[in-house]
Amino acid sequence: MSGEPTAKKMKVSYVHDRENFTKVYETLRDELLNDECLSPADSPQAKAAQEWFKEVNDYNVPGGKLNRGMAVYDVLASVKGADGLSEEEVFKANALGWCIEWLQAFFLVADDIMDGSITRRGQPCWYKQPKVGMIACNDYILLECCIYSILKRHFRGHAAYAQLMDLFHETTFQTSHGQLLDLTTAPIGSVDLSKYTEDNYLRIVTYKTAYYSFYLPVACGMVLAGITDPAAFDLAKNICVEMGQYFQIQDDYLDCYGDPEVIGKIGTDIEDNKCSWLVCTALKIASEEQKEVIKANYGRKEAEAVAAIKALYVELGIEQRFKDYEASSYAKLEGTISEQTLLPKAVFTSLLAKIYKRKK
Amino acid sequence: MSGEPTAKKMKVSYVHDRENFTKVYETLRDELLNDECLSPADSPQAKAAQEWFKEVNDYNVPGGKLNRGMAVYDVLASVKGADGLSEEEVFKANALGWCIEWLQAFFLVADDIMDGSITRRGQPCWYKQPKVGMIACNDYILLECCIYSILKRHFRGHAAYAQLMDLFHETTFQTSHGQLLDLTTAPIGSVDLSKYTEDNYLRIVTYKTAYYSFYLPVACGMVLAGITDPAAFDLAKNICVEMGQYFQIQDDYLDCYGDPEVIGKIGTDIEDNKCSWLVCTALKIASEEQKEVIKANYGRKEAEAVAAIKALYVELGIEQRFKDYEASSYAKLEGTISEQTLLPKAVFTSLLAKIYKRKK
Ligand SMILES: [Mg+2]
Ligand SMILES: [Mg+2]
Ligand SMILES: [Mg+2]
Ligand SMILES: [Mg+2]
Ligand SMILES: [Mg+2]
Ligand SMILES: [Mg+2]
Repeated sequence: MSGEPTAKKMKVSYVHDRENFTKVYETLRDELLNDECLSPADSPQAKAAQEWFKEVNDYNVPGGKLNRGMAVYDVLASVKGADGLSEEEVFKANALGWCIEWLQAFFLVADDIMDGSITRRGQPCWYKQPKVGMIACNDYILLECCIYSILKRHFRGHAAYAQLMDLFHETTFQTSHGQLLDLTTAPIGSVDLSKYTEDNYLRIVTYKTAYYSFYLPVACGMVLAGITDPAAFDLAKNICVEMGQYFQIQDDYLDCYGDPEVIGKIGTDIEDNKCSWLVCTALKIASEEQKEVIKANYGRKEAEAVAAIKALYVELGIEQRFKDYEASSYAKLEGTISEQTLLPKAVFTSLLAKIYKRKK
Repeated sequence: MSGEPTAKKMKVSYVHDRENFTKVYETLRDELLNDECLSPADSPQAKAAQEWFKEVNDYNVPGGKLNRGMAVYDVLASVKGADGLSEEEVFKANALGWCIEWLQAFFLVADDIMDGSITRRGQPCWYKQPKVGMIACNDYILLECCIYSILKRHFRGHAAYAQLMDLFHETTFQTSHGQLLDLTTAPIGSVDLSKYTEDNYLRIVTYKTAYYSFYLPVACGMVLAGITDPAAFDLAKNICVEMGQYFQIQDDYLDCYGDPEVIGKIGTDIEDNKCSWLVCTALKIASEEQKEVIKANYGRKEAEAVAAIKALYVELGIEQRFKDYEASSYAKLEGTISEQTLLPKAVFTSLLAKIYKRKK
């Protein structure tokens, strides 16, 4: 951001790609490193903490798909038109986008510890690094702190400053509530298949994924665009929740049928006893005999048990059922989006285009 | 709180004791249980999550000394006079006090996981409960969320709403920065005694304890009292940091010399290789030979190693050094407090009286 008076003029040259978005990450990260806490790098102790903090961020924040973070700009541009945005508006949209990526990094570091996961985004999980271990429990608190440090630095004087903090707090609460539902519905090492119903599944997914992945970026973009009508936010919430459910069902599908090279991790939902869309759907249509196979093999680490579940999925045609679901869910979302009149359709269609039939 | 018009009248009958303070906890906890996320207890899944959430709170939040939380009211009463406070002001002071207790609960649950601790406040650490384990990693996120849910419910319309959120965010960042300094200065299982200097020690302690334990309650009370002079907040910060250092040095002393029955936990600072005031002081005065004893035995789990360190502390007269430090630190604090004119002295002396020569 230039300090010159031209900084606020119309901006025609900005290209919203991964590279330009990532430049904003570097700016924000460097600002954080110069925070009062971290900056007195005169002592070796403070310098070591600063380096650790940099590594926590660089390892966990910028390496994802960035769909969530980049969506804030897309939403703002859909509402106000890309050509009418000032350099400052673009920067602010991307800063909020990175706050969402920081939120996600915070939850993923925690999730991997709780799930006992091995890899994430094609590299070892942060807590799996030999020097890290349980220090990761504090590192994800630090990742969360970055959100509010960024908000304070860049939105302190903004009319919606308190609203933005409320939005991130609310989303954090919803997401950790979803994690709680997930962890208590499907505790690692114990199986109670009676809990694996569609209702329970959808409730978990709505809280643990949909709000932060879809509603949060859309709401951030709407706030920046100056939208204040509560009905528009309610509408966005409903569409985003549906989209988020669709997204997580894809995620469950990819955990079993995706290419580990492409998705960047080895799926372990079966071993981890996850309340996945696949097992919920299987249970819904399985015979008593087939249910016994699930009971005997789901949530076990042994390769034979995993293979038995996968064979049953083939027998029940689960893959085709997913493809049928994907087509009908997409059609339903398209209908809702085109029928509403409160927001430009591009707000939602640009998001939907990115996730439909995704491979990772 | 009554909704009647008398709710705002002068309040003469309030007694600020543990019992009345704890009643406010129950009100706040019940409000949280009726949060949108948690309330639809019509499904067994949502009901189970609600019960879990209640237990996380009841197990971890209200059972401490409550000095930090109760101090907010004391500060407010020191500035405005206890007799002039309305029922609403008393409630708000105690609600902020509980936010501090929630903040502490959040950090303690995380700290016990990272330190591999066994007991806390005379009961097993939360993560040590068989049904909990690593789910505790999400539970402390939920505990943190409660802070902002309470702030939103009770301070949304308050002029200082954003300032209060900033204060809790800043304190969270400082505390987790202190945890990072602690964890990287003294990694569990590796010993680098060259790092155990007084400077390093004081920096850790300032960040991980002083800000949240002393500055945060004082600043909350000052905000409620309507104080806005930045010089008053800076002064409070300086005094509170000194007081917090004193408090943590006591904590280190009690870890080794306190009665486990009284302090409610078995100290493991020696085993955990903690950068404690005791070992920093020992290193400062030890001969080369004595340093070798420390090097060979500090940070080890074996009972003989712990005994060797404790014997060395006796040899070096560490206990007497602590008592000398306590007396001089107390005198210094009293001097600073009586010399300043920006705030009523009782703001600080009431805090100091609670910690001087404490046994737990
Ligand atoms: Mg996971
Ligand atoms: Mg998980
Ligand atoms: Mg998955
Ligand atoms: Mg500890
Ligand atoms: Mg610790
Ligand atoms: Mg201690």
